Amino acid sequence: MFDFAVNAVSGKARAGTFSTPHGQLLTPVFAPVGTQAAVKSLTPRQVQEVGASLLLANTYHLHLRPGEETVARLGGLHAFMSWPHPILTDSGGFQVFSLATMREIDDDGVTFRSHLDGSLLRLTPEDSVRIQENLGADIIMAFDECSNPNDSLYNVVATERTHRWAERCLRAHRLKDQALFGIVQGGVDINLRLRSARFIASLDTPGIAIGGLSVGERKSDMHAVLDAMSDALPIGRPRYLMGVGTPEDLIDGIARGVDIFDCVLPTRLARHHSVFSPEGRLNLMNAGFALDERPIDTACDCYACTNFSRAYLRHLINARELVAGTLLSIHNLRALIRLVSDIRDSILDGTFQDQLPFWLERWQGNAVRAAA
Amino acid sequence: MFDFAVNAVSGKARAGTFSTPHGQLLTPVFAPVGTQAAVKSLTPRQVQEVGASLLLANTYHLHLRPGEETVARLGGLHAFMSWPHPILTDSGGFQVFSLATMREIDDDGVTFRSHLDGSLLRLTPEDSVRIQENLGADIIMAFDECSNPNDSLYNVVATERTHRWAERCLRAHRLKDQALFGIVQGGVDINLRLRSARFIASLDTPGIAIGGLSVGERKSDMHAVLDAMSDALPIGRPRYLMGVGTPEDLIDGIARGVDIFDCVLPTRLARHHSVFSPEGRLNLMNAGFALDERPIDTACDCYACTNFSRAYLRHLINARELVAGTLLSIHNLRALIRLVSDIRDSILDGTFQDQLPFWLERWQGNAVRAAA
Repeated sequence: MFDFAVNAVSGKARAGTFSTPHGQLLTPVFAPVGTQAAVKSLTPRQVQEVGASLLLANTYHLHLRPGEETVARLGGLHAFMSWPHPILTDSGGFQVFSLATMREIDDDGVTFRSHLDGSLLRLTPEDSVRIQENLGADIIMAFDECSNPNDSLYNVVATERTHRWAERCLRAHRLKDQALFGIVQGGVDINLRLRSARFIASLDTPGIAIGGLSVGERKSDMHAVLDAMSDALPIGRPRYLMGVGTPEDLIDGIARGVDIFDCVLPTRLARHHSVFSPEGRLNLMNAGFALDERPIDTACDCYACTNFSRAYLRHLINARELVAGTLLSIHNLRALIRLVSDIRDSILDGTFQDQLPFWLERWQGNAVRAAA
Repeated sequence: MFDFAVNAVSGKARAGTFSTPHGQLLTPVFAPVGTQAAVKSLTPRQVQEVGASLLLANTYHLHLRPGEETVARLGGLHAFMSWPHPILTDSGGFQVFSLATMREIDDDGVTFRSHLDGSLLRLTPEDSVRIQENLGADIIMAFDECSNPNDSLYNVVATERTHRWAERCLRAHRLKDQALFGIVQGGVDINLRLRSARFIASLDTPGIAIGGLSVGERKSDMHAVLDAMSDALPIGRPRYLMGVGTPEDLIDGIARGVDIFDCVLPTRLARHHSVFSPEGRLNLMNAGFALDERPIDTACDCYACTNFSRAYLRHLINARELVAGTLLSIHNLRALIRLVSDIRDSILDGTFQDQLPFWLERWQGNAVRAAA
């Protein structure tokens, strides 16, 4: 269980296989986000149909609603949402820091108010592990503190705390069928990142996450951190870059040795009428698409692109039909999952470095920050 | 084209086959409503997966947005929404009377204001046929006036006008690959209904619709009208009961010789968290379902019932995940389509009369008027 085999490498890029209780993950892999045990606008079957093999669910949201005890009574996340493939849960920490209406952090944990009803709650590393055990994902995360990447002084404190919390999570972790990943923090400070990587790697977890990126830092800083991680992290364990990203971010991340990604971007953009395309990111609400008979992307094999014109999708958006969000989500997810799968194939057949410029060229213009 | 074969009868109930340019319809048949060229919350593929063979689209809505010329330029409704099976469009009349913010009717047509932007518009019987030609459905409807069923004096005027308009639609109708159906009106006045049935039948259209029912009249009045229609309408043409209905209405309608139904009820109820079940209509938002591991209906073969508990569906509703509407729509549509299909089988194998009490018993309690 949780063996990771590196099947091929090309530069820093790797193609691997990660074994989980719900099947093998072929890496690199992109995980759609099902925050509340549902990928927004899609049925679990539709998420399978776009080729997703790994799904992320959010511990903070599920802790608040319906509660992890409820999910456990209903058989755990896999049974609850009828998802037969691997699931990953985050620790809840990131959402506490980004969503809760009040938060007070101390060395033992975090006290915060629910963004739903204002109730006062507390999470410690041990709570996070216990909640994630009840949710029952294949891959679970250590509780960490994600701080402003550009606040170098505070980052030292937050990174040290993240390390202590990772140790506590490891001690609290009991279930053999769940892989606990430690999380490297350290903002954009390369030395701090290297220190964190060494510490987290020393914990001997089956995989290692890289947190605190894609949270407002410069792209060049993210690349520098990933380059450093590629050298510092052990080759034989999968590397998960949390909350990333755009098509370009995936290409750049894989080229720097990342194996696992997740991001809300494809489904969030879809709900705001935007789609990934070789022409760059398109907003299909634009009146210019009213008579456009082309699919979003003629080279895409998704259900939306093989059946519907931009004009029809634009009509659905204009007419406020919610299924527009469904069809655009199908396309955006399929675009990322297929891109990552194609890149994996190229690593295996030795053509990755040759094709890298082509991919970067094809997907440029899709990295504009989401309007959210 | 547009041949109708009655394959079996049982009392007044009929099992038939209606040939259209997009394939044979096995009747009785229930048509989901795709008002704006989309069944709300569902992709066209999901509509196919619940077993739908006929889809209704609304002329009034599509005339306003995106406009029938746009639909025609994009290949007509079938290509526009990627629906390979038969489509039926209504005449637009009913929506003008129920949605437009102002309407003035005269013998030549109706002047009204768009409910979208208040613009002043006019529809005549000839306009309705021309719009429906551009939309390109297999079955199109004559422009009619649906008036208050209990206003017997005005109903005489409206029914006479409906007859004149039906003649004009027939003269305006040109396309051989579209079946124009006349519409019987007359409210709950049996003599007026019989007069209307004789007139509309005399026009020799490939099918006949029964309008002006399920608009607020008593159930017993609807049944009396349907009984009269069953005797008065020609056996060899399909009978379409517009805008009906609940599971009970379908059973009662088929028992009185109706062949085609359509209704927004299954998808509208779904958006309001309600589902058809053998326990009667359930509102899944109810906290009592929070830990209910059963599917909506253990005997249902739909994607929602074969994969998800009431507890999961209730969680999705509670968490405001739009996919709840998708899953509930799948169930409600499948429930009606399967019911009608099972009834068809029983007419063919001669067991319909025996099973009729069972169906009425199984689906009782689902006919509560929708909260809209």
